[in-house]
Amino acid sequence: MSGLYLEDVQPGDRFPSNDSAATEKAIIEFAQQFDPQPFHLDRAAAEQSVFEGLSASGWHTAAIAMRLMMMGPMQFVGGAIGLGVDELRWPLAVRPGDTVQLNTAIVEVRLSRSKPRHGIVRIQNLMQNQHGEVVLSYTANAMVRRRPAKAT
Amino acid sequence: MSGLYLEDVQPGDRFPSNDSAATEKAIIEFAQQFDPQPFHLDRAAAEQSVFEGLSASGWHTAAIAMRLMMMGPMQFVGGAIGLGVDELRWPLAVRPGDTVQLNTAIVEVRLSRSKPRHGIVRIQNLMQNQHGEVVLSYTANAMVRRRPAKAT
Repeated sequence: MSGLYLEDVQPGDRFPSNDSAATEKAIIEFAQQFDPQPFHLDRAAAEQSVFEGLSASGWHTAAIAMRLMMMGPMQFVGGAIGLGVDELRWPLAVRPGDTVQLNTAIVEVRLSRSKPRHGIVRIQNLMQNQHGEVVLSYTANAMVRRRPAKAT
Repeated sequence: MSGLYLEDVQPGDRFPSNDSAATEKAIIEFAQQFDPQPFHLDRAAAEQSVFEGLSASGWHTAAIAMRLMMMGPMQFVGGAIGLGVDELRWPLAVRPGDTVQLNTAIVEVRLSRSKPRHGIVRIQNLMQNQHGEVVLSYTANAMVRRRPAKAT
């Protein structure tokens, strides 16, 4: 499933990722760098917060989903360039020790109006933890390459 | 401006962040960990891509905005818990050497229906580079604490 062009996917196609484990170390390191709030940084402080325990930054959760997508079965030639994301939700926090898995579904496929050699795929991403609970969901538009025309 | 409760902000309030410089090293390190696509990883490969040069992962850009917000003047007591993000856009890529700055505007302030000690602030975030060009925009809902009632 690698080496995909726009023409190789269609609405309804689904791409499941591998699993990824979230460690306390990785959660704290990301938070120190980008989201230094007590409930992402420190176990004792997190116990006192509304999370009632250490939880990953939502931006860390989104970055983990990106890594799973990039390591997964949906690989476009030349990459997929994110244009925008809608309805990004974190229904439940990712916790240390959680194992998460991403499912990507193709929602729409269309040509680019401005770039004749590219097209736009609209995807729905859903990431779940080991209990099947949704920890992240969003839709996104990404620009991918069209299959080059053959010389005649 | 630190130590804010829900009651301390209202629609129209604006919070400008400090600046942050994006280095090639940081762009590549984030991409290696979370978004390993050639145009985020390697200068020569990026030249051949639609970006025509190395560019930061959109998720790195969003994480930088979070850091700027967390280091900035809008500090809620007990933190701000992200519930969801809408209309996340990356109109232009962040490049090595860019300096970015975030402006946060309060759009809406309301009480939480489920948590009587908390409320919801809706914010609009806009991050610009050193040329004033928008590199990231989104709206977000975050849960923050209400000011505790005084004992009588």
